[in-house]
Amino acid sequence: MLEKITMSRLRYAPLLVFQVILLILFFCFTTYADAEEVKQRISGFEDTHVMIFIGFAYLMTFLKKYCYSATGYNLLLAALIIQWSLLCQGFFDMKDGKISISLRQLLEADIMSATVLITFGALLGLASGTQLLFIAIVEAAVGCVNLYISEEIYKISDIGGSIGIHTYGAYFGLGVSAALRLKKSDPEPAPSNGVATIQSQKENIRLDGPSYTSDVTAMLGTIFLWIYWPSFNSGLAATEVERQRAIVNTYLSLASCTVVTFMLSAAVSHKPGKLDMVHIQNSTLAGGVAVGAVANMYIGPGGAIAVGMGAALISVLGYRYLTPQLEKLGVQDTCGVNNLHGMPGIYSGLLSALFAALATSEAYHNELGNVFPATSSIAAGHLASSTADPRSTGMQAAYQLIALATTLGLALGSGILSGLIAKTKLFSPLEEKQRYDDEMNWELP
Amino acid sequence: MLEKITMSRLRYAPLLVFQVILLILFFCFTTYADAEEVKQRISGFEDTHVMIFIGFAYLMTFLKKYCYSATGYNLLLAALIIQWSLLCQGFFDMKDGKISISLRQLLEADIMSATVLITFGALLGLASGTQLLFIAIVEAAVGCVNLYISEEIYKISDIGGSIGIHTYGAYFGLGVSAALRLKKSDPEPAPSNGVATIQSQKENIRLDGPSYTSDVTAMLGTIFLWIYWPSFNSGLAATEVERQRAIVNTYLSLASCTVVTFMLSAAVSHKPGKLDMVHIQNSTLAGGVAVGAVANMYIGPGGAIAVGMGAALISVLGYRYLTPQLEKLGVQDTCGVNNLHGMPGIYSGLLSALFAALATSEAYHNELGNVFPATSSIAAGHLASSTADPRSTGMQAAYQLIALATTLGLALGSGILSGLIAKTKLFSPLEEKQRYDDEMNWELP
Amino acid sequence: MLEKITMSRLRYAPLLVFQVILLILFFCFTTYADAEEVKQRISGFEDTHVMIFIGFAYLMTFLKKYCYSATGYNLLLAALIIQWSLLCQGFFDMKDGKISISLRQLLEADIMSATVLITFGALLGLASGTQLLFIAIVEAAVGCVNLYISEEIYKISDIGGSIGIHTYGAYFGLGVSAALRLKKSDPEPAPSNGVATIQSQKENIRLDGPSYTSDVTAMLGTIFLWIYWPSFNSGLAATEVERQRAIVNTYLSLASCTVVTFMLSAAVSHKPGKLDMVHIQNSTLAGGVAVGAVANMYIGPGGAIAVGMGAALISVLGYRYLTPQLEKLGVQDTCGVNNLHGMPGIYSGLLSALFAALATSEAYHNELGNVFPATSSIAAGHLASSTADPRSTGMQAAYQLIALATTLGLALGSGILSGLIAKTKLFSPLEEKQRYDDEMNWELP
Repeated sequence: MLEKITMSRLRYAPLLVFQVILLILFFCFTTYADAEEVKQRISGFEDTHVMIFIGFAYLMTFLKKYCYSATGYNLLLAALIIQWSLLCQGFFDMKDGKISISLRQLLEADIMSATVLITFGALLGLASGTQLLFIAIVEAAVGCVNLYISEEIYKISDIGGSIGIHTYGAYFGLGVSAALRLKKSDPEPAPSNGVATIQSQKENIRLDGPSYTSDVTAMLGTIFLWIYWPSFNSGLAATEVERQRAIVNTYLSLASCTVVTFMLSAAVSHKPGKLDMVHIQNSTLAGGVAVGAVANMYIGPGGAIAVGMGAALISVLGYRYLTPQLEKLGVQDTCGVNNLHGMPGIYSGLLSALFAALATSEAYHNELGNVFPATSSIAAGHLASSTADPRSTGMQAAYQLIALATTLGLALGSGILSGLIAKTKLFSPLEEKQRYDDEMNWELP
Repeated sequence: MLEKITMSRLRYAPLLVFQVILLILFFCFTTYADAEEVKQRISGFEDTHVMIFIGFAYLMTFLKKYCYSATGYNLLLAALIIQWSLLCQGFFDMKDGKISISLRQLLEADIMSATVLITFGALLGLASGTQLLFIAIVEAAVGCVNLYISEEIYKISDIGGSIGIHTYGAYFGLGVSAALRLKKSDPEPAPSNGVATIQSQKENIRLDGPSYTSDVTAMLGTIFLWIYWPSFNSGLAATEVERQRAIVNTYLSLASCTVVTFMLSAAVSHKPGKLDMVHIQNSTLAGGVAVGAVANMYIGPGGAIAVGMGAALISVLGYRYLTPQLEKLGVQDTCGVNNLHGMPGIYSGLLSALFAALATSEAYHNELGNVFPATSSIAAGHLASSTADPRSTGMQAAYQLIALATTLGLALGSGILSGLIAKTKLFSPLEEKQRYDDEMNWELP
Repeated sequence: MLEKITMSRLRYAPLLVFQVILLILFFCFTTYADAEEVKQRISGFEDTHVMIFIGFAYLMTFLKKYCYSATGYNLLLAALIIQWSLLCQGFFDMKDGKISISLRQLLEADIMSATVLITFGALLGLASGTQLLFIAIVEAAVGCVNLYISEEIYKISDIGGSIGIHTYGAYFGLGVSAALRLKKSDPEPAPSNGVATIQSQKENIRLDGPSYTSDVTAMLGTIFLWIYWPSFNSGLAATEVERQRAIVNTYLSLASCTVVTFMLSAAVSHKPGKLDMVHIQNSTLAGGVAVGAVANMYIGPGGAIAVGMGAALISVLGYRYLTPQLEKLGVQDTCGVNNLHGMPGIYSGLLSALFAALATSEAYHNELGNVFPATSSIAAGHLASSTADPRSTGMQAAYQLIALATTLGLALGSGILSGLIAKTKLFSPLEEKQRYDDEMNWELP
């Protein structure tokens, strides 16, 4: 009995172990950036910080009895992963065996932590703390490798991370979810006289939804994400003119996406003509994802609006018709990240290939072209510039597609694999009746 | 029946129509700003963005059963109007048939959308979605014309938009409200055995107020508006010294206004000595409106404090004594925008005339004067400078008053007119019992 | 009766009196900073503004029936004290009998107001409005004197204000609390047939805690403080490289502190293995306080992580074991500011002495040293630099300790003294049953 209590008290002990490992690695391998590195152009760190820690956290408070976990675990996971990402991303960038840390690295770490929070959105209420911890560590490490491949090897353009962050995070999460599902069906007790099962399921159905208040706090997350998305998509721009172009495109895409989301929500919702809060909270943001990989390109203000309108269509229809189908297949996706990050991310990747292919070579090579469109800044993420790149526009388009495919493969593969590992007893998976419930993890008032 | 459902599902179809029109106009008439235009001084875009999308939205969540609409419609209206304003404002500024868009234009579009949100505050819970859509489009278009007249023709000083944004938005809203009221009395059923009427009115009275939780989320809106108001009033300043003067003045005016609001609220509230949340949520912000038109002038830190104290007086007494009188006349004003934006806006306009008249000519002409006061930056909104303007200080004062009068006339006139149009069946006005209720528009948990 | 009502209506009249005094002082003694002063390096004003007005306010909404007071009084106190601090801090810096005000002074006034809000946290629900007003005015004035001594006389390094703001504010508050406690025991009615007493105490115990909703709004305060703490600790840095170092250190310290807080919370909480929201809301922030006095030093990224881990230990154990002991002694500390600001502040002060003592003289004197650690920017708060200071590193360490001791002495002394004054009838102290209850001060729905 006493031992059981001690075990329970130490259930978060792996956190301490991992934190101590981080401590040692930081002591051995990191240093401050010098005065020269500090001058690198950077913007939007604080805004991105708000998106990660307020935006994602509050967006996930829509579940009525999972708000402590949504805000608490979001903070914990992000706090852990930003440290871990500093090491994983810096690993590819070491000088004399040291990783230099400045504001730019902090911003990149924040951005990488978004992948883990997107995955957390898919698994919201479905995974235990230990599972989340393991999944997060694997996801961020593989995510950094994937980003390295996209940016340094394929040299793709993906300034807003629609491929490397949103697509990756969403399909990693769906991979985990698919793997965890196997667990559920395998050892499930025979539902013979399944009164208890039915009852617990009923309760789950009740908990797996919002209250009036929790929807209002969730909107807070939505709106903060909406507000700062232009900063997210433009933070790593190399010049002021590129930065403002990325801001303008993101702003317009979000605006048109929002308008169309409202129209479509009333058109397809369960009660005819009424708006569905799930669409308003999530699909209004799909415009930010969809424009991500092309935000710094010459897609034109009109092009940005068109991109946003398409995003709303994909996202609202996905929530209404696709998510229920996936659930029938056993792939849970609590926040519907497939509709907010996944499909809009793929859409953005495809757009980036299209616009790269259509680019006039002048516009492509010297950024003078005002015509629609041009991939003026290839791989603006980490690379300073590749204007001297002899690639044809068609080649660039091909690389964009290859990077998208690589991302999907790596995300699903490593997601399923870590899900399979995480469903073992070692990671104390949740029972059906423990889902969507803060009671499991928190002292409640 | 089926047709009725289809009609209901398509009730937001006008949104899509308007969004497609916007798409076409953007394709034809807009482009990105070039590298030169991008260098124009600008600050406070993100801060203003938070005010528009979080501040206004959450301030309006004080109604207990209208929080989905407050946050949702705020997002929808603003997302629509920022696109529309980019076109309307850019129309006066076209080069070669094209409107150039940079961060500056986005900030100006955000600011213009505030007029529509102020009007939404007056009509909160009283107007249908279709009515709001129509009203918003008219309001923003006329608002851009009014701003053009004030800034380009009258060349007035109104850096914080107290005349062109706050006064305009408030009286446009009151005009609409007055017009909608006629509707109500006209076809109202004879209240003979008015049990139903009384009951529905009772219910409305119950819904037309806060809950404990909704007041706490409303304070979130208040405080974010309060925090970023200095950025709002200084975003378009031409120099750093002017920007910091505008920040200092706004900061001090808000601070003194807040202190006096608390004192007055306890003095006049219904329960002697207790504070009224309506005053705290709204009147504390009147200092930001009141200092708006003079924020960049040499009014002195002491002057800014005096301006804020006066604003609290106007606003709290307005809420306590004037709003109930207006309601008796049938002019509903749910958020009391007359007391937060309307009268403080007029007060600011009068102050701007006073300070222009009192300006020493040295201070007026060369911004050297440290004495109180001087209108150092005339029409800082859009004009770079008018230091070479041969106007006398008296003339400038006269123009400030003329612009205020023009604004009031245009706002009330176009407000009443669009209200009269919006009350026709075409715009599906609300019935009495549908007011202040999310049930009308949302799938509720 | 009528007179009583009038008295009640005028209970906030002292606010007006004090605001008029401020008005006069501002008219006589303040002016705008000139173009030269405006160029002084400054950052993080808006971020700090969010911390003061949203962060502190919402962190204090965890009490279920004190959210109006938490958000309202936080706004009132801060609005008052930022004006008062501009004068008190400027008093030491006058030129020609005038205080120049620019953005920098506003930031410093915001920072000083934090001391009062920390004290408000200790007294949350325990003090009347009049008491808070009096206490706040004294605290800010003495706080400015203390800061002057630390920075201008001792020339200590305390960029994040861990000594001058956090330690000072916490122990001033505990001093007041200890003094108010005497009051309670003195005139308490004999608990003979104390049914009423027991009942009222029971009710207090019920009010002295969170609801599910209030904990979710409190997390909003936590997270905004967490997000912007790097800006707070780096706002007054003299160079960009120093600023980024302060940001990196604060970011890492907060992150590691958060991870360890979760682990410890489950280990020591009342229900084995469950997380305690009090720890998550507060102890996760202790890393920001702990790194404050050394944030701009060469403590190394690993050093920052170690500092944060220690802060979590001090803070969580303090909440779990020390606060109940203090309460038994009669020292109430509603928000546990001793564990968030007090002990982590002392810890930071001790660290600043340690790192000063360990500094290599090269690193200390010319900021070239990349080795761990060096107090590169002494007294970065107000002084531009003291690189020419002939002090030895040991001397500097001694001054850090002396400043910490001075701060503790001044805080406790003036706190106890103003508590003793504030407990007289004149300041209408609360009765036991009025505690933690908005009913006292607000018209409730």
